[in-house]
Amino acid sequence: MTKRDPGANDELIFVPLGGAGEIGMNLNLYGYGPPNKRQWIMIDLGVMFGGDDTPGVDVIMPDPGFIEEHRRNLIGIVLTHAHEDHIGAVGHLWPRLKVPVYATPFTAALVRLKLEEEGILDEVPLHVVPLGGELKLGPFHLEFIDITHSIPEPNCIAIRTPLGTVLHTGDWKIDPKPVVGRKTDVDALRKLGDEGVLATICDSTNVFVPGRSGSEADVGTRLEAVIASCKGRVAVTAFASNVARMQSVVRAAQKAGRHVALVGRSMHKIAAAAIETGYLKDMPSLIDEESASDLPANKVLYLCTGSQGEPRAALSRIAVGDHPHVSLGPGDSVIFSSRVIPGNERLIHQLQNDLAMRGVEVISAEDHDVHVSGHPARDELADMYAWLRPRIAVPVHGEERHLREHVRFAKSLQVPTALHAPNGSMVRLAPGEPTIFDEAPHGRLHLDGTIIARGDDSALKERRSLAFAGYVAVTIVLDQRDRPAADPVVICAGLPATIVEAARQAAGDAQDRVRRFDDAARAAEEIRRAVRREIQDSWGKKPVVKVEITRVG
Amino acid sequence: MTKRDPGANDELIFVPLGGAGEIGMNLNLYGYGPPNKRQWIMIDLGVMFGGDDTPGVDVIMPDPGFIEEHRRNLIGIVLTHAHEDHIGAVGHLWPRLKVPVYATPFTAALVRLKLEEEGILDEVPLHVVPLGGELKLGPFHLEFIDITHSIPEPNCIAIRTPLGTVLHTGDWKIDPKPVVGRKTDVDALRKLGDEGVLATICDSTNVFVPGRSGSEADVGTRLEAVIASCKGRVAVTAFASNVARMQSVVRAAQKAGRHVALVGRSMHKIAAAAIETGYLKDMPSLIDEESASDLPANKVLYLCTGSQGEPRAALSRIAVGDHPHVSLGPGDSVIFSSRVIPGNERLIHQLQNDLAMRGVEVISAEDHDVHVSGHPARDELADMYAWLRPRIAVPVHGEERHLREHVRFAKSLQVPTALHAPNGSMVRLAPGEPTIFDEAPHGRLHLDGTIIARGDDSALKERRSLAFAGYVAVTIVLDQRDRPAADPVVICAGLPATIVEAARQAAGDAQDRVRRFDDAARAAEEIRRAVRREIQDSWGKKPVVKVEITRVG
Repeated sequence: MTKRDPGANDELIFVPLGGAGEIGMNLNLYGYGPPNKRQWIMIDLGVMFGGDDTPGVDVIMPDPGFIEEHRRNLIGIVLTHAHEDHIGAVGHLWPRLKVPVYATPFTAALVRLKLEEEGILDEVPLHVVPLGGELKLGPFHLEFIDITHSIPEPNCIAIRTPLGTVLHTGDWKIDPKPVVGRKTDVDALRKLGDEGVLATICDSTNVFVPGRSGSEADVGTRLEAVIASCKGRVAVTAFASNVARMQSVVRAAQKAGRHVALVGRSMHKIAAAAIETGYLKDMPSLIDEESASDLPANKVLYLCTGSQGEPRAALSRIAVGDHPHVSLGPGDSVIFSSRVIPGNERLIHQLQNDLAMRGVEVISAEDHDVHVSGHPARDELADMYAWLRPRIAVPVHGEERHLREHVRFAKSLQVPTALHAPNGSMVRLAPGEPTIFDEAPHGRLHLDGTIIARGDDSALKERRSLAFAGYVAVTIVLDQRDRPAADPVVICAGLPATIVEAARQAAGDAQDRVRRFDDAARAAEEIRRAVRREIQDSWGKKPVVKVEITRVG
Repeated sequence: MTKRDPGANDELIFVPLGGAGEIGMNLNLYGYGPPNKRQWIMIDLGVMFGGDDTPGVDVIMPDPGFIEEHRRNLIGIVLTHAHEDHIGAVGHLWPRLKVPVYATPFTAALVRLKLEEEGILDEVPLHVVPLGGELKLGPFHLEFIDITHSIPEPNCIAIRTPLGTVLHTGDWKIDPKPVVGRKTDVDALRKLGDEGVLATICDSTNVFVPGRSGSEADVGTRLEAVIASCKGRVAVTAFASNVARMQSVVRAAQKAGRHVALVGRSMHKIAAAAIETGYLKDMPSLIDEESASDLPANKVLYLCTGSQGEPRAALSRIAVGDHPHVSLGPGDSVIFSSRVIPGNERLIHQLQNDLAMRGVEVISAEDHDVHVSGHPARDELADMYAWLRPRIAVPVHGEERHLREHVRFAKSLQVPTALHAPNGSMVRLAPGEPTIFDEAPHGRLHLDGTIIARGDDSALKERRSLAFAGYVAVTIVLDQRDRPAADPVVICAGLPATIVEAARQAAGDAQDRVRRFDDAARAAEEIRRAVRREIQDSWGKKPVVKVEITRVG
């Protein structure tokens, strides 16, 4: 790379729009140039998943409005790795940005599937970057550096600019034996440190976890022991994207004389992408679910989706006896080779209870060490900072409490400046003292059915109210002289029967009490209040009540 | 006690109606006598709390229908201790049972408050049993045996009958230094074992936890160290009912030269009950919230409710700056001296993030050992079985997976028969081989507003659907000759604006298409389907749609 001098007014800017306030939906922006002529690159464009507090919303994305406005100066979207919280929004939000996308082969294979689903594969310029490759995007010179994580091909991105080098870590850990894929390129990181690193933008997920995250290879060894000790059918559930885990499970099955059947759509999808891009090379031939059921119990191992208790995933269907080809019962075992994502406890415990009810033995990471995290614990973070010796640390990929702790921890490791920069922070990394100089618009988008709505959208808020206390819709019918022409029509949902009756009665009484209907809005409001008050008195809760007035004629 | 011989057809029956399938809402029945003349006692009558999956329902109770039917033969309700999952339903369900209630002093004090709230204090015969006391209820001779837990006055109940003795453990642990209240009466338990125990009905909460639960006294020591190291204001949050923890926090505060203010209604309620019944004797005078805010930061300690992130509790209000008298900021610390109840992770993390956002340091049990469980880990369970040497073990107080594991564990401890008896199991403990001979009706009741509804109630189910995809209420207005007299009135809730428009359009089109309205039900159904189909096509989700037809004239 030829070094270039910075222009007189050049600045290097970092703006997280997602992921610095939650673990999920990452969207990071880097800007370079004078304030009126900044050029931008985006690193990652992910989602998080909705939960019980966002009913009807499965997918949540960062609002890209800020960069959408500047999209003429957005050069490209660079993806660090293929987890949903880093690539999941590309299919949904690319049409708003329409810039080239860059990813290494495995990530690109999975992005391609997403674009196909959205019907925009032909439109999107998706460029495959080789592992360890380099990329020149306007003023940014990018180098992909091998690291390890819980998916093939995680990358740190070294971003060189005339004002200094930033290392964007992406998601990472230091796994000495990653089972699948390359090891962490410690030499490249050390070299970068020697060269001088201005800022490290780093994963905070496990900043509260002491020690080290452990190795995939060790999980493999423990899985071998556990699987060898099982007698009946065995099902292992793990994140489909953890190809190393898949490899370990298959090896353990082989050693135990079991044939492996993949169960669940995403297992098949990821396995295909992995094989296509050169991973999972020494896989014995897998069998399909149907053939598996013909084999003796001790010859079978199912590798299933559904470790988070997702009701429609394979394992939940097996647990309630609703899977077309796989059934488990007394003597069989299910191994949860996965962590419990916070918020999923209830679903996972329900799943484990359903399995227990069938007499299935449940073996989980809680008591059997059959999982390791893909994120750096404190000793690994310390290694990273020691290799890079950055002038600035900006924690991302964490909730508020993780970011704060990571700032404290980075300072304790002698990083001169550690910045707490939540979503929307416009951080000037250089020149001068690093500082947050402005706030960019930021927020969440909800995929509500097929509609992308703002996260503060009133429809979802109203649905939450409906869930709490139900709904009463009242229609008042007037004749042409503004006199009631029928009893009010009261249509309720989610109310106990006695309360429905009370609502009907209250609406009738209120209609009788209204003297003049010529001011329709006022009459409607009067009736609405009367119905709400009556229900509050008899039920102790206030439903959503809406009143409409119609005229016949 | 004078021994009595069993009648020829006498049987000893155990029936869990709640708590053997969930950790919460305990309701245990013991029956004695010939099948046609059984007499019953109830042990505990608790609740659990609703969550995101039961919107609008705060309290869930076991359905007492089975014993309600036999209430003429129900002699009394005996309470083991004052936790909500053991006494919380007494106020709601006593009116269905109308039998005397028995409890030790501290438990009785808290039950009294509940009965007062429900306005039935004068009606309920509430009998106070002394610690270690005995009680004769028909064929049952009860002995209260001191044990330890995370609340004052937990009791094991030894139930002696002519067919043998059952030990109902209630909730327990073996705490060598419980800080408040008596120690476990190991002698009494050993003596009971020597005398011969037919069955042990035992707490399963921590059957997956190896080792021992630890002691309250050790938590006290660690709290002292942590509090001593804090500089600014300190808030500690813990379960209000854990009076020993309250005592430890006050002692630690004293040593650190801090004055303690209780914050939150239940802290005050429990402290009053504890003082009234002779606990918390050497408490220094507490200060109130308002005076506390006038003291220097390092002289104050707030003991707060809200460790589970309950949005209306003191700590959540403090965290969002909405508490009238307590405010925390940079330099202050909040200590979570409590466990994370599964299902509350999201709320607790939100709370901790809100605190972090204010610059408050969050110290939690995860990294500082400032909490111990009140339930027996495996070594404690092993002790209990060794002391009692029962012929039968019936695990309760657990989800399905806990009950199953407890059965396995009891068998490994040489208990001859361990029975998996989920809610509704009618277990014949004697005579003969213990067996589940029938299933009693069982289920859940929901406190929905002021109405007690069955857990499979359609109102709640409908509210869940409303939360997912909203609601469309359509009113069709016909004239006296069954012709439409107005456009359909479409009242929507929880739908995006564009979908509301589509629904309106679809209803109008459908009304135009319907040829004959004289079969109103059929016409309504046709319009309902058309609206639902249109929304499904344009939104990908199907809301609840209801159509009513009204006639003017």
